[in-house]
Amino acid sequence: MSLLTSRLGAAVAHLAAPSVVARAHCDLPCGVYDPEQARIEAESCYKIIEKYAANEDAAFRTRAIAIKEERADLVKHHLDVLWHDYFKPEHLGTVPNLHDLFWQANKQASKVKASTDLADAKKLLDLIDDVDAAWKATGGQEKTRVVRQTA
Amino acid sequence: MSLLTSRLGAAVAHLAAPSVVARAHCDLPCGVYDPEQARIEAESCYKIIEKYAANEDAAFRTRAIAIKEERADLVKHHLDVLWHDYFKPEHLGTVPNLHDLFWQANKQASKVKASTDLADAKKLLDLIDDVDAAWKATGGQEKTRVVRQTA
Amino acid sequence: MSLLTSRLGAAVAHLAAPSVVARAHCDLPCGVYDPEQARIEAESCYKIIEKYAANEDAAFRTRAIAIKEERADLVKHHLDVLWHDYFKPEHLGTVPNLHDLFWQANKQASKVKASTDLADAKKLLDLIDDVDAAWKATGGQEKTRVVRQTA
Amino acid sequence: MSLLTSRLGAAVAHLAAPSVVARAHCDLPCGVYDPEQARIEAESCYKIIEKYAANEDAAFRTRAIAIKEERADLVKHHLDVLWHDYFKPEHLGTVPNLHDLFWQANKQASKVKASTDLADAKKLLDLIDDVDAAWKATGGQEKTRVVRQTA
Amino acid sequence: MSLLTSRLGAAVAHLAAPSVVARAHCDLPCGVYDPEQARIEAESCYKIIEKYAANEDAAFRTRAIAIKEERADLVKHHLDVLWHDYFKPEHLGTVPNLHDLFWQANKQASKVKASTDLADAKKLLDLIDDVDAAWKATGGQEKTRVVRQTA
Amino acid sequence: MSLLTSRLGAAVAHLAAPSVVARAHCDLPCGVYDPEQARIEAESCYKIIEKYAANEDAAFRTRAIAIKEERADLVKHHLDVLWHDYFKPEHLGTVPNLHDLFWQANKQASKVKASTDLADAKKLLDLIDDVDAAWKATGGQEKTRVVRQTA
Repeated sequence: MSLLTSRLGAAVAHLAAPSVVARAHCDLPCGVYDPEQARIEAESCYKIIEKYAANEDAAFRTRAIAIKEERADLVKHHLDVLWHDYFKPEHLGTVPNLHDLFWQANKQASKVKASTDLADAKKLLDLIDDVDAAWKATGGQEKTRVVRQTA
Repeated sequence: MSLLTSRLGAAVAHLAAPSVVARAHCDLPCGVYDPEQARIEAESCYKIIEKYAANEDAAFRTRAIAIKEERADLVKHHLDVLWHDYFKPEHLGTVPNLHDLFWQANKQASKVKASTDLADAKKLLDLIDDVDAAWKATGGQEKTRVVRQTA
Repeated sequence: MSLLTSRLGAAVAHLAAPSVVARAHCDLPCGVYDPEQARIEAESCYKIIEKYAANEDAAFRTRAIAIKEERADLVKHHLDVLWHDYFKPEHLGTVPNLHDLFWQANKQASKVKASTDLADAKKLLDLIDDVDAAWKATGGQEKTRVVRQTA
Repeated sequence: MSLLTSRLGAAVAHLAAPSVVARAHCDLPCGVYDPEQARIEAESCYKIIEKYAANEDAAFRTRAIAIKEERADLVKHHLDVLWHDYFKPEHLGTVPNLHDLFWQANKQASKVKASTDLADAKKLLDLIDDVDAAWKATGGQEKTRVVRQTA
Repeated sequence: MSLLTSRLGAAVAHLAAPSVVARAHCDLPCGVYDPEQARIEAESCYKIIEKYAANEDAAFRTRAIAIKEERADLVKHHLDVLWHDYFKPEHLGTVPNLHDLFWQANKQASKVKASTDLADAKKLLDLIDDVDAAWKATGGQEKTRVVRQTA
Repeated sequence: MSLLTSRLGAAVAHLAAPSVVARAHCDLPCGVYDPEQARIEAESCYKIIEKYAANEDAAFRTRAIAIKEERADLVKHHLDVLWHDYFKPEHLGTVPNLHDLFWQANKQASKVKASTDLADAKKLLDLIDDVDAAWKATGGQEKTRVVRQTA
């Protein structure tokens, strides 16, 4: 399923889901969630793979592999928090492919751990952008972030 | 694919799945997975709540809350590893409610963090036992653990 | 020094620093840096303090304090990475108060750990926004993030 | 107390301790202990060494070494918790070689970190099985685990 | 090897080990060990308990308990590393109570986690000083630390 | 600025700063700080690089690189804690180059992560010794450590 179809589907589902009641949900830590956290770590993986390809020094490559492993793990952690705690049953109307999207994204993060192919990191970024779209489509940005004040 | 379609598809696949070929999957870390890891941490949460109820000392209760938080986090970590890396698309025939089961179990672990009600910890244990059943039904025990040698 | 003065000072310093040569710098992990990481954790602290004030349950408050401690620690970690690895001597022309800014921000994060006063969390957000301004003034956004592709 | 006095005191105490009284012991986290936690991580080391031998790709091997290091560290952590907190002076009658067993097992885990020889991982599994036998011989299974309910 | 055989074997080995040969031992991480690491964390526990007694604010006390838990855990970690990796069979002649000393010190660290009694933290410091004496008596200072150069 | 000049400058500044009022500062964790923590981890990096040079085995070298990464990260962590929490504005009279010293030391720790040159680890040790001198010059040893009792 392309991202476009998914977004169209989400929009339609949004219109067609009048009876889903969004109950106030107060959890701790805090109710602050943002897929940007996963994105930043996935960008690290992307750049590490770029640098790995450009540098054949054995010690450099060992560091690159070890650090990529950690970064991809952080991607998974941030994705898991979103799936466990931000997304709730009332969002399934807006994001019908929610579970599959997160499953794919996490499996892709596992793949990036094992891979030195830039296309794998690129696909991970795309999946995180789909998660970001789902977060925005469900009002995540307005509901969870603290508004930045401008002078 | 909508969630509805996904569930129907899964149910159909379940009936029609004689030819699902389980391909060997070689990942690192290692291919060793066992829901017992999540179960042990969830038992800790269960016993911590029992002890919390039996002891009104403020310092004791602070420790209990703080340690339960960590243990429930480890439950989630172990569940996530199973969902990301052990379970694969070919298992959806055998476990059609796979995603929902893991979503519920993780949400229950979040609830246990916030709760001092033993029933919440009990429900978490039950959900982990469902995960355990899914792991066994898909051959997890034979395929992932190293056989113990007996004299 | 107010943010405004600091920005004016930075702009002037930028014009007056013609001979600082920005050498390419290739480090690992990856060269991806963004103060947004610190901001998100600091927003968690902010919301935790809000929720703490609104809920007198002892177990809830224990969790709030313990989780705020961790979140403020992550703020510090993300600030440290920016200060250690993103900012370099050639940026001191553009951001003459760099060290003091990071020292203040980190000391404020320590204060937020110990505080249940929302004003302390608000001041931390402001200091992180100053760090964000310094990162942008030195080209951080263009140089370190992977560009998001739009369809 | 000087080291010398301490040694004399320990020797005397050893001779004079015929009637160890088993007092009830209530500790936090929770009183849940199981050598299965150490066993699962040690099985990971075992399988990682198997896979390392079968794959000469440099990036794969780097990951294998780095992950084995972490897994062996978790083995040690789980062994330490058992030794520090589960086993008590009253168990020394049943398990007279307790300290030596844990010392050997931990030293073997250190060896597995450095080794790519499957026999080293096998020996670690055997030592953990000895720990498991000691845990069972002292009633660990009945006293520390939450009983699984069957329908 | 069964537990029983292992116990017999250990007992025999104990009787038959008059001439322990000290072999050079080169391990990674690095061969740098110092009980000062455990001591510093234990001093933190000591001072936290002092401050806890002097401050009845609930939020302060929650932080004190949570941070003491972490610090006592670091004490245990540093003790474990010394016991696992620095001390070797050839040191048992010089430090015959080695295992008991580490067992007591670790059990005392567990006690400090649960305690707000300064005497418990004081006893932990004393036990760590005994460990320090054992480390010095076996040449630890000369063999493991890098010599500080003086001008 | 050389360490010598820095120390002279610090001494002069100390004499010339009569109006800096050292206010009592009570923070948690505990007020225990010691640059020895950073020094010990930096010595690990030093010895790891020595051993790396002496051993060409690929698996050994992978472990060396991965462990050095962790140790250098701990150096940074311990330096950061000193800079954030031990040093306060009233110390700037005594240690006028405080910020630059910590910035250099942290940048050197980043360099040690990437380097297999012993001179880099040596320079890190020297910078930590400068931090140690600054800690002593500001009374850190007397004010933060718990006095060891001698029999």
